[in-house]
Amino acid sequence: MYQCSLERMKEKLETFARFGDTGNGGITRYSLSEEAIMARNEFIKRMEAIGAVIEKDDMANVYATISGSDPHAKRIVMGSHADSVMNGGNYDGILGVISAMEVLETVVTEAIPHKHPLTAMIWTNEEGALYPPAMMSSGVVCYKFLPENIKANFEYEDMMNSKNVLDGKTTFEEALMRSGFRGRIENRLSRENAKCMFETHIEQGPILEAAGKNIGIVKCVLGMFNYRIRFYGQTSHAGTFPMNKRKDALYAAAEAICYIHEEIDKLGIAELVYTTGEIVCHPNIHTCVPDLVDISIDVRHEDTEALKRVEKVVMGLEKLSFAGCKCKTELQWKRDTVYWDKELVGYVEESAKEAGANYKCIHSGAGHDAQFVSYMIPTTMIFVKSKEGLSHCEKEYSEPEDCTMGATIMLNAVLRADKKE
Amino acid sequence: MYQCSLERMKEKLETFARFGDTGNGGITRYSLSEEAIMARNEFIKRMEAIGAVIEKDDMANVYATISGSDPHAKRIVMGSHADSVMNGGNYDGILGVISAMEVLETVVTEAIPHKHPLTAMIWTNEEGALYPPAMMSSGVVCYKFLPENIKANFEYEDMMNSKNVLDGKTTFEEALMRSGFRGRIENRLSRENAKCMFETHIEQGPILEAAGKNIGIVKCVLGMFNYRIRFYGQTSHAGTFPMNKRKDALYAAAEAICYIHEEIDKLGIAELVYTTGEIVCHPNIHTCVPDLVDISIDVRHEDTEALKRVEKVVMGLEKLSFAGCKCKTELQWKRDTVYWDKELVGYVEESAKEAGANYKCIHSGAGHDAQFVSYMIPTTMIFVKSKEGLSHCEKEYSEPEDCTMGATIMLNAVLRADKKE
Repeated sequence: MYQCSLERMKEKLETFARFGDTGNGGITRYSLSEEAIMARNEFIKRMEAIGAVIEKDDMANVYATISGSDPHAKRIVMGSHADSVMNGGNYDGILGVISAMEVLETVVTEAIPHKHPLTAMIWTNEEGALYPPAMMSSGVVCYKFLPENIKANFEYEDMMNSKNVLDGKTTFEEALMRSGFRGRIENRLSRENAKCMFETHIEQGPILEAAGKNIGIVKCVLGMFNYRIRFYGQTSHAGTFPMNKRKDALYAAAEAICYIHEEIDKLGIAELVYTTGEIVCHPNIHTCVPDLVDISIDVRHEDTEALKRVEKVVMGLEKLSFAGCKCKTELQWKRDTVYWDKELVGYVEESAKEAGANYKCIHSGAGHDAQFVSYMIPTTMIFVKSKEGLSHCEKEYSEPEDCTMGATIMLNAVLRADKKE
Repeated sequence: MYQCSLERMKEKLETFARFGDTGNGGITRYSLSEEAIMARNEFIKRMEAIGAVIEKDDMANVYATISGSDPHAKRIVMGSHADSVMNGGNYDGILGVISAMEVLETVVTEAIPHKHPLTAMIWTNEEGALYPPAMMSSGVVCYKFLPENIKANFEYEDMMNSKNVLDGKTTFEEALMRSGFRGRIENRLSRENAKCMFETHIEQGPILEAAGKNIGIVKCVLGMFNYRIRFYGQTSHAGTFPMNKRKDALYAAAEAICYIHEEIDKLGIAELVYTTGEIVCHPNIHTCVPDLVDISIDVRHEDTEALKRVEKVVMGLEKLSFAGCKCKTELQWKRDTVYWDKELVGYVEESAKEAGANYKCIHSGAGHDAQFVSYMIPTTMIFVKSKEGLSHCEKEYSEPEDCTMGATIMLNAVLRADKKE
């Protein structure tokens, strides 16, 4: 078996951490920003140096390809994203890009024979931090293979018109044009030009660490749904309006959040995760009783039936009254569990065993570009342990040894896939 | 006794409702905005027409004074504010200005004899909607008479540097200079130049309506305190982090809001009001477990001892844990109940009886400029019934007949005060 280089991995992790460095141990590297373009240029420079051919598609996804012995074979693709959220870390996304670069560098340096062309790639705007939605360009590239209920979120025209959330006016298309990275639609990843895809990523959760493992063999991305719940009250003056006549939409939301926790926990569904991460209160003034409060609820589990039972609790809120207020629930997003390609998962597991990795089979709760790609071509993921499970923050950290192990496993899994017709 | 004019009151209410008209039945008339300046110019034009002398002080407070028979007597002052919150109503503040104008117009038109000069005035920036804090200019004018714990909120330099909350950069001082309304510090309301002050205002609550009354004789402004409570959690990914390891600051805040309601209600304090009107959640993303949540709590009651019992509940939160999160509580603001001048309240009640008003003695939960003035000179307030208790919204409404009754009572109370040495 072949080994990736710890020294090279460390150097790349350090170099890419500079593009968008916040000075506090993390980065802010919005997609297509100046910082992201610096990272992309570094990627191109290094890949050209090992003889890779660079291509860009119309969503600014960048592909670096080294040829194989069979000029007619489809590519085997590896990659992830190079953009981050605000004050994000040095591993989410970029580790998958660095690992793909490392695999190509190892193949070239050690002159490893392979039949298929091998491609390292950067997906544009996975985070959707500046231009929603998340996973935008994999959504567009894989559009015609997506389930109907997901398609609606990735209409090409809507994506082009997505507005910068900070300035409220620049469109994604303008950012795309300005970046100099908009290429040709013919260059998109497709069933015709790609055999399969691997994505290495940090776990973004504490499961591996808690189990004393360094590597996760990912079997699936969890099914999920997301609702908005809006509470309707009546605004009044905090100093003058008697308690028993109030309709306080924030108190209603607080009661409902507690109720949701109680009722969902009663269902006793193991490994379920659910989160109210967002709340918007109107008018949000300390001397006013709130009249409108919006909350989100995000629920994830492998089993569709389990999700349905939880969804019933959420939808049931409409029949109840909290602090004298009614509410409306609205489904925002729903997907069934996506299972990775069994053959590819097998190659990853064999490679992990061979490399002596301390691994565990795991599922992914977060969404990744690989998940949309899996509707189009065989796909799988490799997870690297996250310290304390932290992600989307500056404290995000993975050991360089574990990162290198992830790349080594990907390299050998790719070579296994390469041997298979 | 003398009567104010329903026709004149109606006309003034309609005219002033045009300055900042939102087209939806209300106004947005931020202090020192173009719309507020239109209202001030209308005030000046009308007051000059009846022979009043106009003065401005350094906080842009505007005074219109008609002389009395004693050239050495101090003024009797009436007034309120002309600014509004965003999408506010046509009565909050401006009714007190219009009523003061109406009193002067009646005195002049009917040549009512009086010894003291009579002044109608506009207080600058009572709402603090664009330039916090609320009651800014009465805070500055009455500064040296304020209790120590309130003084800190009205340092002159801080007021001048108060930033426009919408653009984040224009200072109050810049707005003041640009308005053309900055006058001389010598013109400020003071113990030396003013005998007492009356403020007519809408109730902003439903007590009068519920009691079938039209006029409130206000005895005091309720004591209050306001805390910020901050919950400390740990952010993590909504899809990957197991429930039992989470520290969800929003769930903590929801539990705490419910706990606060339960515990405070257990105290069984009649007529207590308390409100969580504001919540700020970080990072407020539906796929992230929140790590920091800030809430406000505003509590009001006449009895200081009752407030202390509630404050104990609020401060006690620090010793508890909600959803695995700790919290910190921080006092923002506190004041004891402010009682109006008994003699002036007596004049108002006698005048209300004489006018045949359907009145009720009441307290004010909201803060008003009169409250700061009361630390300096004798002061009192008259309330006019608010439809459904609504205020700070476009549906705010008071009957013109009730508004006129309020002005008539103020006129006769002023004349009673005028007779007293």
